[in-house]
Amino acid sequence: MDRQAIDALVARFETTGVTGPGNPRVKTVVKRLLTDLMYAMEDLDISPEEFWTGLNYLGEAGKRGELGLIVPGVGLEHFMDLRLDEAEARAGLKGGTPRTIEGPLYVTGAPVVQGEARLDDGTQPGEIVVMSGVVRDEKGQPIAGAKVEVWHANHLGNYSYFDKSQSAFNLRRTIVTDAQGRYKFRSIMPVGYSVPPGGSTDVLLTLLGRHGHRPAHIHFFAHAEGKRKLTTQINIETDPHLWDDFAFGTREGLVPPVKTNSDAAAMKALETSKPFYEIEFNFDMQPLKAEAPDTDFARPRAAA
Amino acid sequence: MDRQAIDALVARFETTGVTGPGNPRVKTVVKRLLTDLMYAMEDLDISPEEFWTGLNYLGEAGKRGELGLIVPGVGLEHFMDLRLDEAEARAGLKGGTPRTIEGPLYVTGAPVVQGEARLDDGTQPGEIVVMSGVVRDEKGQPIAGAKVEVWHANHLGNYSYFDKSQSAFNLRRTIVTDAQGRYKFRSIMPVGYSVPPGGSTDVLLTLLGRHGHRPAHIHFFAHAEGKRKLTTQINIETDPHLWDDFAFGTREGLVPPVKTNSDAAAMKALETSKPFYEIEFNFDMQPLKAEAPDTDFARPRAAA
Repeated sequence: MDRQAIDALVARFETTGVTGPGNPRVKTVVKRLLTDLMYAMEDLDISPEEFWTGLNYLGEAGKRGELGLIVPGVGLEHFMDLRLDEAEARAGLKGGTPRTIEGPLYVTGAPVVQGEARLDDGTQPGEIVVMSGVVRDEKGQPIAGAKVEVWHANHLGNYSYFDKSQSAFNLRRTIVTDAQGRYKFRSIMPVGYSVPPGGSTDVLLTLLGRHGHRPAHIHFFAHAEGKRKLTTQINIETDPHLWDDFAFGTREGLVPPVKTNSDAAAMKALETSKPFYEIEFNFDMQPLKAEAPDTDFARPRAAA
Repeated sequence: MDRQAIDALVARFETTGVTGPGNPRVKTVVKRLLTDLMYAMEDLDISPEEFWTGLNYLGEAGKRGELGLIVPGVGLEHFMDLRLDEAEARAGLKGGTPRTIEGPLYVTGAPVVQGEARLDDGTQPGEIVVMSGVVRDEKGQPIAGAKVEVWHANHLGNYSYFDKSQSAFNLRRTIVTDAQGRYKFRSIMPVGYSVPPGGSTDVLLTLLGRHGHRPAHIHFFAHAEGKRKLTTQINIETDPHLWDDFAFGTREGLVPPVKTNSDAAAMKALETSKPFYEIEFNFDMQPLKAEAPDTDFARPRAAA
């Protein structure tokens, strides 16, 4: 079918089964996506069997709850980050800590701790890491009472809540910065992981000739009064997949040095006999600005 | 983001996480759909919250098993019919009974009956309809041993299997044509119906300012040795929604006259005291042709 015939078919929305004006935004979006899809089906000569195979794949991915993992895997979540970067630049917001993808593994309701937290419950193996830094405003001034939400995987690459073998909120906390704007936590070093084998994301990536590995990383939300919510991650610089993330999440400015601390007094203070890792990382916040799209947006998130 | 930047992002599929060539067709299709989607998100300035709302809607529709109902509702199934029509015309196939959408309510495995069948189990109210006709080849010659698969809704607009209150395969049969190529069945008149209230399809149609009604209809597959499978429906001409089908399924050539038979002997033969309906409808089949896409394609179908 030529494009004119496709346009005429989509235009039948206005003459068939009409009951009222509907929602103008939804109508605009659906008509555009549908027209694009029909053009693509025509250009690629998609057969009915190919169409139904694809639709069935989507339905299965919905049933398995994997759509939120496919989105980063095909670069759509990174794409939305790049669009937010551009919108901020247009609104005159520059600098600040780079954002990167949230991913589907955040859980609301983690315990709130003042200043300093231990994230791991002490039952799991793993190398100790101590991470700390300052939440700062656009002038570099520390922000007291800011919130740093942190979540990461364990030594097997699994997240509490989704991995029911872990204790509630293991490796998840909300840390409130102290009077000097500082946060600090002790945890165990996360490792990289892959998408669930045999799941919808894995099936698609295999067909695309791609793997589903993520390099080791730690997720953050940073919030402060009058500031834009920051969604970001740091990557662990030694991970072999550092720049080969299936989710396109690694970004310049989000790979802090990982130092090894073998000071006897420091080890003793942590009640360990082995050297441990240290990471220093600051969160530079941007002021709220009406012209820039809100970064504190709703999306489906798990709640424990 | 401009189109060049979007193209560059999609091109990262070839440099990030690559493990092998993958499936060339899937790669081509996914890259096209993804690029189209990113262009559309840019053009329409889709916010992250809008994106996640849409994705969550899709996931819910998958969970509820409604994707197969949304597809006809947005005209995609009719679109695929029009594409098959065009492909057949290009392959030199002309005439024949028009195809129309299969819909999501076919169930495999219905009882096979020679020549003449009664579709209803006799337990449900409804006006009697007797439908009959001939399955013919492209020269108008009757085809003995052809199969006419028929399925339709009851007096409430519900289909057996999906409506567990009906007996197994109620209003579903496979009828094999007799030596004269004839099929015949007695049933009860179907009525029109709407998409499930509050379901994903209903939610979308409401946002589009459209209803979810279908006019009364009867579904058919017709198969014969050496012929192309025909997927079609007839509509009941008196239905007020005849040309206002939310699924765009009504087509010229698929609205046969419905006659009322009040002949005393005929009524007595059916053991009824009331006049009944009669419909005559022939299925004109097309020969198999390698140049035309196969119409006997796989798609997810229920199996009792």
